[in-house]
Amino acid sequence: MNRTRIAALYADMDQLGGTELTVAGWVRSIRDMKNFGFVTLNDGSCFKDLQVVVNRERLGDETYEGIVSQNVGAALVVRGKLELTPDRPQPFELQAATVTVEGASAPDYPMQKKRQTREFLRTQQHLRSRTNLFRAVFRVRSVAAFAIHRFFQERGFLYVNTPIITASDAEGAGEMFRVTTIDPANPPLTEDGKVDYSKDFFGKPTNLTVSGQLQAENFAMSFGDVYTFGPTFRAENSNTRRHAAEFWMVEPEMAFCDLEGEMDVSEEMLKYVIAYVMEHCPDELDFFNKWVDKGLKERLQHVATSDFARVSYTDAVKILEDAQNSGTMFEYPVSWGVDLQTEHERYLTEKHFKRPTFVTDYPRDIKAFYMRLNDDGKTVAAADCLVPGIGEIIGGSQREERLDVLERRIQELGMDPEQYKYYLDLRRYGGCHHAGFGLGFERLVMYLTGVDNIRDVLPHPRTVGNADF
Amino acid sequence: MNRTRIAALYADMDQLGGTELTVAGWVRSIRDMKNFGFVTLNDGSCFKDLQVVVNRERLGDETYEGIVSQNVGAALVVRGKLELTPDRPQPFELQAATVTVEGASAPDYPMQKKRQTREFLRTQQHLRSRTNLFRAVFRVRSVAAFAIHRFFQERGFLYVNTPIITASDAEGAGEMFRVTTIDPANPPLTEDGKVDYSKDFFGKPTNLTVSGQLQAENFAMSFGDVYTFGPTFRAENSNTRRHAAEFWMVEPEMAFCDLEGEMDVSEEMLKYVIAYVMEHCPDELDFFNKWVDKGLKERLQHVATSDFARVSYTDAVKILEDAQNSGTMFEYPVSWGVDLQTEHERYLTEKHFKRPTFVTDYPRDIKAFYMRLNDDGKTVAAADCLVPGIGEIIGGSQREERLDVLERRIQELGMDPEQYKYYLDLRRYGGCHHAGFGLGFERLVMYLTGVDNIRDVLPHPRTVGNADF
Repeated sequence: MNRTRIAALYADMDQLGGTELTVAGWVRSIRDMKNFGFVTLNDGSCFKDLQVVVNRERLGDETYEGIVSQNVGAALVVRGKLELTPDRPQPFELQAATVTVEGASAPDYPMQKKRQTREFLRTQQHLRSRTNLFRAVFRVRSVAAFAIHRFFQERGFLYVNTPIITASDAEGAGEMFRVTTIDPANPPLTEDGKVDYSKDFFGKPTNLTVSGQLQAENFAMSFGDVYTFGPTFRAENSNTRRHAAEFWMVEPEMAFCDLEGEMDVSEEMLKYVIAYVMEHCPDELDFFNKWVDKGLKERLQHVATSDFARVSYTDAVKILEDAQNSGTMFEYPVSWGVDLQTEHERYLTEKHFKRPTFVTDYPRDIKAFYMRLNDDGKTVAAADCLVPGIGEIIGGSQREERLDVLERRIQELGMDPEQYKYYLDLRRYGGCHHAGFGLGFERLVMYLTGVDNIRDVLPHPRTVGNADF
Repeated sequence: MNRTRIAALYADMDQLGGTELTVAGWVRSIRDMKNFGFVTLNDGSCFKDLQVVVNRERLGDETYEGIVSQNVGAALVVRGKLELTPDRPQPFELQAATVTVEGASAPDYPMQKKRQTREFLRTQQHLRSRTNLFRAVFRVRSVAAFAIHRFFQERGFLYVNTPIITASDAEGAGEMFRVTTIDPANPPLTEDGKVDYSKDFFGKPTNLTVSGQLQAENFAMSFGDVYTFGPTFRAENSNTRRHAAEFWMVEPEMAFCDLEGEMDVSEEMLKYVIAYVMEHCPDELDFFNKWVDKGLKERLQHVATSDFARVSYTDAVKILEDAQNSGTMFEYPVSWGVDLQTEHERYLTEKHFKRPTFVTDYPRDIKAFYMRLNDDGKTVAAADCLVPGIGEIIGGSQREERLDVLERRIQELGMDPEQYKYYLDLRRYGGCHHAGFGLGFERLVMYLTGVDNIRDVLPHPRTVGNADF
């Protein structure tokens, strides 16, 4: 079937006006004015709908009645002439010459025109992307994902698919999902009665990855600039608006790059993605700005054009302590050495700096083992990027490239050096200073849309107790 | 550090010739001619190396000796003047003014210049991408992945991240990995002594996905044209050159599209990706053509410009039976109703049609439940795309959009309709004819490179008994 997408009608209306064409899509509403009617059709190719005009005389009574009696959600194929209507709210209408009901809908169709709660829509994940909100969210998600690929590919970065199933734990911490073919009802046992993982599929215990960073470093030491973009997992029993058990991460890793360079790339990437989405999803952003978050477009515009603030953790703590002393109440009091909570992050980026803010050089005891030790011996070359409304969106660091320092750190933390042999090898054979970061992709989509629950930016979210669809 | 990538030297040599610049990379070889020496450096930004000229007099004895005594693999930072050398094999050299050893290598560096077996290199996955072969493979992989995104995004397809963790089984078959937080040494039990999966993380048994298709259909029924590109899994205990436990799939799904349209998009996509890789990876393809597969470039060129053959399963079986009768020996004899084996697929595409070939309309009993039943009642609207050297690379079909036919099929196969409620809903509320396919991304990379083992096109392959790195 040679159908024209509704997106193409809007893009090429000057050429297509007056021509005969075929459109296929789903009914969003029908108004029957007795001798003629209006069918609002959407085919998902763009945010906007198409108004189809059906005329009783032209179509005949039977066809006309058959169409205006359709339920919302029905799939129609319409052939007709595109008529430009510069004097009406919509720029054109399709004057239907023939209409075929490809698939009827039912009166109990759950996506009715009335406003539904997001909680209800989470129970209808197979249908919710037919609503304006989710149509807009998932288009922005797709466009932002492509913008990320474009950004890195244009700069010569290699896209590397780090493994999902892993026998190691990238952070030396974090709750992980076990991946197994062992039947827990009847596990193979060793002679001393323990579960015999040598009989598991991979011959040892394996988990779902929490980060591709360590493997990305393997490739950065060959290709210079690389990035991952894939799913990562946390088996954390936390039921917040910002956490999911399965989410997508972007993890660039750059050889011969220090913390300043890492922040430069993070900032450039965020601005690039924002600008790309603003250019390619104007209707979607208008929708969010009107119905979800009234300050959204202004904020995105501001971020895309302003320099991000950069402040050391030590100075950030001073700012927060001053705020405390001036009467700001934090649920968790701040002092040097504690990890920053979302409330602190949001204070810094929303109240104090009023723009995205990198906080750098955190105490080493609250950061991961692979981060490069600063000369003061107590902080590491880390940089978290905080954004208004979200808090941390990017966590980056320069990696420890000095073999002796890294080995000492692994020992101090009681980690098994044997597990990190390959990682240490990178420092044995032509190591170099290098840095990278991790971007939580869903947090970026939340930031781009103003949607405040991670469950509403994932196609089929996985959280504690939820793996439906 | 403001370094220039070696790729930029090759791209902009006319502008950069004669200028001072800084390059950083890894030593591939060193020749010491006593008063001067040549260091071959690669920074991973392109396939080609850079020749650095070090001069004893200019650098001083100590620095000079320090450099020429480096081991292969060492990381160097070189500042110097780029000198165009139109009369030499390489178009330019870098005349080193200063050289810094950023990270030394060791004499036991496993990636020596001598030829290593691929089996050995599989034990060195953290270093193997420093060899020509893997440098080329993973660049092609990255460029091909981006080409796929470009192809679909240019055509308005929505990129959708279907879930990795799932409580359902897309194919109604296939060995799956269990994802769990239950400790098999001490599983929670129900009153009647069974493992109590209500205590598992998601409140029920969950697995790693074998396909995102069913969820992609949810989105195709909203957005029209969508695609997934993500990891999928098989817990099959098979040790072949073509199977891995973890691999990446591309799964487009298109509303208002029939089997012909599905084949058109598959063919167009394959040609697009081939052309894109030929344009962006000429050095890599030259390398494969010379060292891995002498017919590669000719074959890719041929495929990019010729029409794919299309033949029904029934006619394909006749061709194979004729071949059998004419003396071709197949390990598995062919007759109508049997599934085609790789040997049959390769005969069709390599010997008979001599180009990529779609085989269509397979017997329904050897295909998945969701494929659309043809009017003959015994075949389904499936299309497998076979390519020379590989066999099946794409499996596609038109999906059964008729609620009653689909419900009957689910019943016949003894599947649980309750598990497919959402899938059936898509046929209740505005269903339409639609089609899609799955492309095994690693098979595509094998096809593009001539590399014949899936373990050598995955950054860190996962196969039975192997989850290292």
